[in-house]
Amino acid sequence: MSAPFIWPVRVYWEDTDGGGIVYHANYVRFLERARSEWLRRLGFNQSALQKSGVVFAVYAMQLKFQKPARLDDSLDTTVENLILRRASFTVSQRVLDQRDGTLLCSGEAQIACLDAERFRPIPIPQEIYLEMAKL
Amino acid sequence: MSAPFIWPVRVYWEDTDGGGIVYHANYVRFLERARSEWLRRLGFNQSALQKSGVVFAVYAMQLKFQKPARLDDSLDTTVENLILRRASFTVSQRVLDQRDGTLLCSGEAQIACLDAERFRPIPIPQEIYLEMAKL
Amino acid sequence: MSAPFIWPVRVYWEDTDGGGIVYHANYVRFLERARSEWLRRLGFNQSALQKSGVVFAVYAMQLKFQKPARLDDSLDTTVENLILRRASFTVSQRVLDQRDGTLLCSGEAQIACLDAERFRPIPIPQEIYLEMAKL
Amino acid sequence: MSAPFIWPVRVYWEDTDGGGIVYHANYVRFLERARSEWLRRLGFNQSALQKSGVVFAVYAMQLKFQKPARLDDSLDTTVENLILRRASFTVSQRVLDQRDGTLLCSGEAQIACLDAERFRPIPIPQEIYLEMAKL
Repeated sequence: MSAPFIWPVRVYWEDTDGGGIVYHANYVRFLERARSEWLRRLGFNQSALQKSGVVFAVYAMQLKFQKPARLDDSLDTTVENLILRRASFTVSQRVLDQRDGTLLCSGEAQIACLDAERFRPIPIPQEIYLEMAKL
Repeated sequence: MSAPFIWPVRVYWEDTDGGGIVYHANYVRFLERARSEWLRRLGFNQSALQKSGVVFAVYAMQLKFQKPARLDDSLDTTVENLILRRASFTVSQRVLDQRDGTLLCSGEAQIACLDAERFRPIPIPQEIYLEMAKL
Repeated sequence: MSAPFIWPVRVYWEDTDGGGIVYHANYVRFLERARSEWLRRLGFNQSALQKSGVVFAVYAMQLKFQKPARLDDSLDTTVENLILRRASFTVSQRVLDQRDGTLLCSGEAQIACLDAERFRPIPIPQEIYLEMAKL
Repeated sequence: MSAPFIWPVRVYWEDTDGGGIVYHANYVRFLERARSEWLRRLGFNQSALQKSGVVFAVYAMQLKFQKPARLDDSLDTTVENLILRRASFTVSQRVLDQRDGTLLCSGEAQIACLDAERFRPIPIPQEIYLEMAKL
């Protein structure tokens, strides 16, 4: 990928925990939003994909939580470094503080293409594969 | 109903927010757990119901948040005062502090019986209706 | 209020449940985002408020779930019909389908102004009260 | 650790997503519940720890999602293979189907001991360190 895809996320009360910071599991939600918006930018709505029998599912994830985000923070989430395979792909992702680019969370997500009923691996649909291959 | 159905809930980090208390939307999750366990106690798993084409869906809810719950608190959630109709039912629900019974949250939930595909009202299945009518 | 405040919300996987629709408790999260953005538009960040010892907390809520939202839907959430009191306020809120304005969820939230430490009612800070009174 | 610590988790609607399975970020919540209960079993409530100025925070996590869990499933979550250091520890964790022990999710969590105000590393409190060292 030539440049990271970037998607803004605002931190709300729902995202914080009693420690006064963003609850760690919620970064996983943020990263999924970024991937959903990246797919949408490529031209693909997952609701339509699901109706056509295809879902993308995370099968592995590695996360580092570098610094805490807090209520009202404006974050940037990224999708980058795509590694494309026939029935799966891997992306790197980061969560950055929008003010100064401080790295808050980074990780990697391994995503499988599955049939939506039985959750068995299937090839990435041709039109999606070709769009991804252009990146 | 002769006596309230009671289901215990523990407060984890995921349930709290940056105010140091349980985030208000999470009481809605707790109340749903109580209703799910109440249905299970009556003999009905909602996953099996869904497969047979039936879902129960909240169509209205009134909530009062009386006092905050905090991390590690042991709560009791209730289902009580069932009002049973052909295609819907209403229950009262409370969230109590297990230590001393302090009322933390109370509310009422109106639940419709819907067909799982098109979300249209259907009669409550006979065997469930009869179990509920015994309460 | 002369006109509703409107805030867009996109539905992600995290918001849906196994019924294929937005989980009802998540509308409560959406409505809180709308109120947070409305306060921000008025000039107030809740993180700053909290540091100054003030939090706004929902103490009652009435909700109607009219129609289901689904994955990838673009929603509008509103804040409207403000009723302002010295230490609390009430707003109406709606969730609408952005495509055609279909009403999906509506409700009312009663919000108390509390001191951030002991959660006791305090007057709404003067500068916020004055901004709200202009609406 | 001689034996895994095991904590049961039930899957509710809140945990599922529109794919009909448990949303991947929710396993992260389940694993945190298991660690919280493991600490409680050792004799430590995190709310008391926080008041004394100590929090445990995940700083890295590796996850594999092997098989999907579904609504109503009874799961076992584990904490095992503790590696104890002065200011941090690492545990392995699994999520298993209670019916037959099928592995659904596995991972490793790296946990830092931080001061609760400034989130800087501090030594694990002596009494906790000693309890963990006995395992």
